[in-house]
This record gives sequence, C-alpha cells and structure tokens, in this order.
Amino acid sequence: MISEPSFVRFAELPLDCGETLKDVQAAYESWGELDEGKANAILVLHAFTGDAHAAGIDHEGRPGWWANMIGPGKAFDTDKYFVLCVNVLGGCKGTTGPSSIDPTTGKPYGLRFPGITISDMVRLQELVVEHLGIRKLLAVTGGSMGGMQALQWAVDYPAMVEACIPIATTARHSAQQIAFNETGRQAIVADPDFNGGDYYEGNPPARGLSVARMVGHITYMSDESMREKFGRRLRDRESFSFGFGIDFEVESYLRYRGAQFVNRFDANSYLYITKAMDYFDLTAGTGSLAAAMEPADCRFLVISFTSDWLYPSYQSLEIANSLRSRNHDVTYCELSSSYGHDAFLVDVGEQTEIVRGFLARVYKEKRATPRR
Amino acid sequence: MISEPSFVRFAELPLDCGETLKDVQAAYESWGELDEGKANAILVLHAFTGDAHAAGIDHEGRPGWWANMIGPGKAFDTDKYFVLCVNVLGGCKGTTGPSSIDPTTGKPYGLRFPGITISDMVRLQELVVEHLGIRKLLAVTGGSMGGMQALQWAVDYPAMVEACIPIATTARHSAQQIAFNETGRQAIVADPDFNGGDYYEGNPPARGLSVARMVGHITYMSDESMREKFGRRLRDRESFSFGFGIDFEVESYLRYRGAQFVNRFDANSYLYITKAMDYFDLTAGTGSLAAAMEPADCRFLVISFTSDWLYPSYQSLEIANSLRSRNHDVTYCELSSSYGHDAFLVDVGEQTEIVRGFLARVYKEKRATPRR
Repeated sequence: MISEPSFVRFAELPLDCGETLKDVQAAYESWGELDEGKANAILVLHAFTGDAHAAGIDHEGRPGWWANMIGPGKAFDTDKYFVLCVNVLGGCKGTTGPSSIDPTTGKPYGLRFPGITISDMVRLQELVVEHLGIRKLLAVTGGSMGGMQALQWAVDYPAMVEACIPIATTARHSAQQIAFNETGRQAIVADPDFNGGDYYEGNPPARGLSVARMVGHITYMSDESMREKFGRRLRDRESFSFGFGIDFEVESYLRYRGAQFVNRFDANSYLYITKAMDYFDLTAGTGSLAAAMEPADCRFLVISFTSDWLYPSYQSLEIANSLRSRNHDVTYCELSSSYGHDAFLVDVGEQTEIVRGFLARVYKEKRATPRR
Repeated sequence: MISEPSFVRFAELPLDCGETLKDVQAAYESWGELDEGKANAILVLHAFTGDAHAAGIDHEGRPGWWANMIGPGKAFDTDKYFVLCVNVLGGCKGTTGPSSIDPTTGKPYGLRFPGITISDMVRLQELVVEHLGIRKLLAVTGGSMGGMQALQWAVDYPAMVEACIPIATTARHSAQQIAFNETGRQAIVADPDFNGGDYYEGNPPARGLSVARMVGHITYMSDESMREKFGRRLRDRESFSFGFGIDFEVESYLRYRGAQFVNRFDANSYLYITKAMDYFDLTAGTGSLAAAMEPADCRFLVISFTSDWLYPSYQSLEIANSLRSRNHDVTYCELSSSYGHDAFLVDVGEQTEIVRGFLARVYKEKRATPRR
C-alpha cells in the first residue's frame, strides 16, 4: 500500500514571535489503526530535513526515513499502534513554510515568513492531533530536532502525553551546534542566487545550499564511521590528481549528497528550521532544566549514542538527571554505536528492543487504567 | 626589535607531482643566534594559515603566532637556541605560491600553480636550512600541519634532525579531516568571484573564503571552549530577532573571524595547502606507520590535547606506538586542555615545561658528543 500524505488546514496559528500565521496547512502521514479509545497513537517527530513520510513506501517507491523503526512487528509496531508523522511548520514537504504562498500577497513568503520556534512546530502538531480526535498520545518520539519537539510536547501539553522518547537530542542548542547551523546559513545567503530569499522564480541558491549540506553530513557521521566507509580510498583513480577535481571517495560522497539535497529541500526552510533549533532552550526563563521539565507528566525514555558528537551523550544525561531530580519516571540508555548522530536512523537494533519494551509497558499500564 | 622576514630565492624546486617550479622564493624569520657549531638551530613549522612570523613583533606591532612559545626564557629559548620559521610553499606570505607571478607568463599562477605536498614544503625548507649553513637541526617542531612537516622532516632528512616534536597532528589525514577541508574548498569555488582562480585583478572570493574559515574555526575549538567563551549569550540584544541577522555571540564571532580572514589569506593558497594536507599519508607505499618511520634517526616528543577532536589523541598515540615498535626514542604526552585543537597555540603552560625539559636534554647530549 502506498503511503501518501493527507492535508489539513487551520485558519490561524499564533507564533512565539508575536505574529499569527493565517491559513496554515499541515501535511501528515499515518500507519496502523486507531483503537476504539484512540488510546494507541504515537506521534513521531522528524529531524531537520525530514518530512511526514516516516514509514511505508511513497508513490515513487521511496521508503520512509524511519521505515526500519515503524511497521508491523517493528519498534513502533503498526499492528498495535497508530503512528502519525506531521511535516514541521517551516518545512517544504506539504506543511506551510517560507516556500508557501502568502495569502495576503499571492506570492511565496520567502524571508517575509515569520520566525518560528520548536514550540510553534508543536503547536501546529497539536492542532493536527486534535483534528484526528486524539485526546492523549501514547507516546511522542523523535531523534535530533524530533527529540526537541518531543521534549517540548511533554512540557507544553502534559495532559496529552503518556510517554516521551527523545533520542540523540538536547534540551538546548549549544554554542557549537549554533555555530554549525550558522555556517550553513551563511553559505546559503552568500550565494548570489539566494537573492534575499526571493529565488522561487529563478535558480535556487544551489551552490550555497550544497555546501551547507556537506557541513551537515560531516556532523551526522563520526570520525570512525567515515574511516570505515571511505578511509583514504581514491575515487576512480590510482594516484593523486594534483588538481581540484575529486581525489577521494569522501569528496565524491559529500559533493553528491550536497548536490542531491538541492533537489529535495528549500533553502529558506533551511534557514528557518535551523534558527528554530538554535532558539531551542527549554531552560529559558526557568533557571534550570529540572524546573523547566516540572510540568511534564509522563514517562520518559531518553536515548543517546556513544559516537554522536553533534548531540553528545552528556546532553541526554543532563535531561535524564534533571528529570530524576524531580522524581519523573525516566529510563536513560546510552547505546554503543560507531555511526555518530546518524545512529538513530541507521543503527536501530538495540534501539528497537529498548523502545519496544518501553512502549509495551506504557501501553499495558494505560489499558489497565483506561481513565487515567 | 622588529622581526621582519628575509627572503631567499632558488632556481628550481622539484615537486612530488613531477613538475619543477622555477625561481622559487622562500620567506623566513629567525630569532636568537646560531652558536659556533651552528648546532643550536630549531626549525619551527607553521600550521595551515600561519606564516614565518612565529615570534617577536612585526612592523605593524603584531606578535608572532607562537610568541608565547618562542623568546628569551620561553619553551624555545632564544637565549640558547636559534629559532627559524619559513613560510610554506604554496603560501601567501612571502614564499612562492599560487598568488606569485609565474615567470613564464608574467601573471599570477592561480590554478596553474602545480599541486604540492607536505614533502614539497619540507624540500624547500631544507634548501633554506642549507642556505643558512646549518648541517643538522637541533629540533624540528610544529603543531597541526606543522607537525606533519616535522614528521616528514624526520623521515626525509634523517641525518639533519636531532629531535622531532610533532604536536596535535597526525601521520595521515583521515576521511573526516579530508571532509572538512573539501567543504572549505567547495565553499570557495562556489563563489562566483572565484573565477577559476583568476581573481587577482578583481574581487577575491570573499564570501566563500569566509564560510570556509567559519567551518575551520569550529573545528579548531572544542564544544567545551565554545560553551565557555560564548554559551548561548545574545549579541547586543535582549531577545531573539526572529530574523537572520545576528542573534548569538557565537554567530557574531564566526562572521567576524570569517570576514577578517579574507584580508589576510589568499583563497588559492587555501585550496593548495588544504590539498597538501589531505594528500599527507606517511604510510603510503610502506604498509605501516612503523615501517614509514623506520628511516628516522632522532628523538621524538609527541604531544596531543584531550579536547582536540580535529586531530584527536589516538592519532598521536598511533605515531608514538609505531615509533616505540621500532625502538625509537619517543616520549608521548597527552595534555589536558579544554581549548580543542587551538590548545597548542593558546594553552601552552604544560606544553612549555615539557618542551623545555626535552630540548634541554637533547641539547646537553648533543654538546657532550659534538661530532655525533
């Protein structure tokens, strides 16, 4: 069965910046069936350049970005659970973002799109969940920026979340994380084709966006996984070129991934979403992460990976310890992997076992106390 | 006393790529005095964007890049030693590079400059050392790319090196190190002002070079040092801009450092020198690092820093262990620092003590056996 997005529109979405977006569309996909009490829904939250197509096969034959985690018998077992994924606000895969038409001008927003936050993304998702008649989610989960959204859900809508599974993420973006994002943004705006964000009738800033993606890819892998995958192998040659074409496999890979990315992602979305991540700081205005997480009323499973240097384990441990300090029910697992930040997408063996067990407990206890 | 570069020209320099450079100039600076036997010379080798101005104050009042390590009473004590630093081949600070005039055309080389290697840089330095009448160097030393040159010296000119002090470096560039360099190169060539390397009569590719430098700066610092220096502090504002100007201190810092860099460094030199680093692999053709280092006939002091993730300690340990396996005289010190790769430049307390002690032993033993 082909997995296709559904769309829903909302008249208004108030934003943290003070503005209100009009006529907002959200794209979502889902797998599995809602049970009678609509008590088996799991909201999966995607990472930076992801989309609603988390599972199944789309009409072009592409598997979802978490197809190894979502499906019959998998960690998020669609024989038991209803799994939902919504493209984030600011994105470019069906949900309103800077490439959408501004209803007041009839032209794409470009940089006239208002600044957004992780909390704004969650606010839109809540409307979708409500639209589907779901009063309480069995779980919210995601890796990387998806984990940020999961944490934000637990804090912003405590009565709607039974369990929260943030993976390979942080409670606030660090200086280094901001720095990498800012480099990508500067690569994009440095491209003359960027044209102040108004490039939809011309060429997109392909060279800048490609460079931004190359930087990103390095941070998603680990020193070790790059050595294993590429080492110092040359690409289609026996000796050095002594020029500036491609010598090494790793150069070829990065250029290819950079060039490909341009075909599937909007540069303005890149700017807005990275900024939302950089703004993310659950502790803002509360003094401590423990205080910030105080409103949460759910079980937590926090997962990190040993070789993830973009969202290092100490940031997940900080989340777990803050939750423990206020007696939240929290399990923290640091999983061993050489895949770096990508581990949550590609090295899912142990992650599957742990998520499956955790969800089974939550679901069982929920059914035992249906009116909880 | 003002420290100024001296210049020396050589008719020819054969290169690893097979070409021969004609009429090659080398810029160098020195501090302290050669002793009678010219037996107290230390060759300091600079990192990627460094130059011959390693110590003292230049005519614009700028201290040398290793002024905290080189001077009277310092680690490289100019009351005892003669310290020499040569701008690398391919550079843009007085030594022949892609911005130099090609004698055959009367125009800057640009991308017509031949591809170069770390070994080529060392070959030119050897001519300078010979020109100064120095038959054997008391020590060769440098951090980062300077450490690569130090290792290459020990292998290529074993009879001319008494001691080798590679710091925060590697015996071969890893896939991740190549990847970061390639990203910088692509940022430069993506800039329309790059114009195939022929920009000397127009504008340099300032935006691309600036982005390349921003990426570099992130890799030179550590997660911890960036948190200590910037954290999530906003720059001259109380709340988020919700736009794409500068919100965070770290954004301001990176943009400033990127923009500044354009004024002092040539984009073509960036391309050639990063490629030389990427080509660097002492083990090439030998099967193992131990075999590659076999010709070396000197004492080694290998230094790395705990928080350096660009040239991680395991790469220095690999050098030390390979040397030990062939019974070379080697001391390996991993120094504790939060400054990341920059530690060898800025966190020099322990480094000073260790280098000072090591050099004193080498110098003492050398004087005890003057004809060794």
